[in-house]
Amino acid sequence: MENQQYHDCIQACIECIESCNVCFDSCLKEENVKMMAECIRMDRECAEICGMAVTAMQTNSHFVNQICGLCAEICDACGNECKKHDHDHCQKCAEACFKCAEECRKIAS
Amino acid sequence: MENQQYHDCIQACIECIESCNVCFDSCLKEENVKMMAECIRMDRECAEICGMAVTAMQTNSHFVNQICGLCAEICDACGNECKKHDHDHCQKCAEACFKCAEECRKIAS
Amino acid sequence: MENQQYHDCIQACIECIESCNVCFDSCLKEENVKMMAECIRMDRECAEICGMAVTAMQTNSHFVNQICGLCAEICDACGNECKKHDHDHCQKCAEACFKCAEECRKIAS
Amino acid sequence: MENQQYHDCIQACIECIESCNVCFDSCLKEENVKMMAECIRMDRECAEICGMAVTAMQTNSHFVNQICGLCAEICDACGNECKKHDHDHCQKCAEACFKCAEECRKIAS
Repeated sequence: MENQQYHDCIQACIECIESCNVCFDSCLKEENVKMMAECIRMDRECAEICGMAVTAMQTNSHFVNQICGLCAEICDACGNECKKHDHDHCQKCAEACFKCAEECRKIAS
Repeated sequence: MENQQYHDCIQACIECIESCNVCFDSCLKEENVKMMAECIRMDRECAEICGMAVTAMQTNSHFVNQICGLCAEICDACGNECKKHDHDHCQKCAEACFKCAEECRKIAS
Repeated sequence: MENQQYHDCIQACIECIESCNVCFDSCLKEENVKMMAECIRMDRECAEICGMAVTAMQTNSHFVNQICGLCAEICDACGNECKKHDHDHCQKCAEACFKCAEECRKIAS
Repeated sequence: MENQQYHDCIQACIECIESCNVCFDSCLKEENVKMMAECIRMDRECAEICGMAVTAMQTNSHFVNQICGLCAEICDACGNECKKHDHDHCQKCAEACFKCAEECRKIAS
């Protein structure tokens, strides 16, 4: 149903949104929330831009390239923050972020 | 990874978002856009509340019930508008909206 | 320019969004982030629903009443959490939330 | 209360969101909706990125520059589309978009 050229990137964004939302919720429940502050901040912003990228691709926005370019940048930053932390939710989130950044860069270029 | 009790509802919301975004884009490209005005309006709003419902479920919001309740109501309205139109994108969107409304009502209740 | 009947409520929502975003950022920078976890969570959600309420009012959505009703509920919950904390950003946020809840209830009813 | 360096840009974004939402609603009510299709599409996207820019500035995001840079680009595109149409809501929207693009470029640079 959706635009086929965007299929993989949309999927990667949807998985990244889930990982970021789960990580956001889990970080807020950790014992050491202070250590997770940057992760919480990045999870929120990453989920937001991924949501915007999904909308852009599904509606054939004229700004798909630019939005996916910015999304790749924010996903990389979120992934880099998450991978610092040993929690499962952070490691899984880092993986989803890097995968999403990779797919977004393909669309952006 | 995600909260299992919400699995089906999250999936239904994600599919509804896609259908609404595709329908929004397709309606704007139809010959008779005037006839599609209400559909365009509902598609946008439905995709927005479905996105909010996904975030609420994935982050274990305290307001999951209320947000899913409102989401069901807006999905039903969007589905009822879409089903009036013969376009494939409208018929598919109506189906996704009604499915999503059903899943959201299970969570809301 | 905007719909006059919604003027006060839109203003209250815009001020509430600002207070929630500032409080979110400030909470993440506090020494005791753990204590602020619930506040961080509510700030994010409250800003999101207030944004949805603004969009609904400015676009004359058919769901203005229901969206403002839910917004009032979430604003009250966010205000109740914020008012527990002595930080200036929390106290200011509580005030903005309660003011917004009041305006939203007028529209919802 | 908000970050003073962003004051003017936040205000410009808030006014642009309002103009875009009013224009979106008004375009959908015009006799000739077909002619307004591109305007409806841009209004939605412009309001979304302006909302993201407001959040970024109010939460001191690490990506304020990049988000405001993209916001400026989308505001310019929306303004250029709106200024083609004689309707008051389009002309006012074009003005708000260009003002917002200008303020966003100051932050982005």
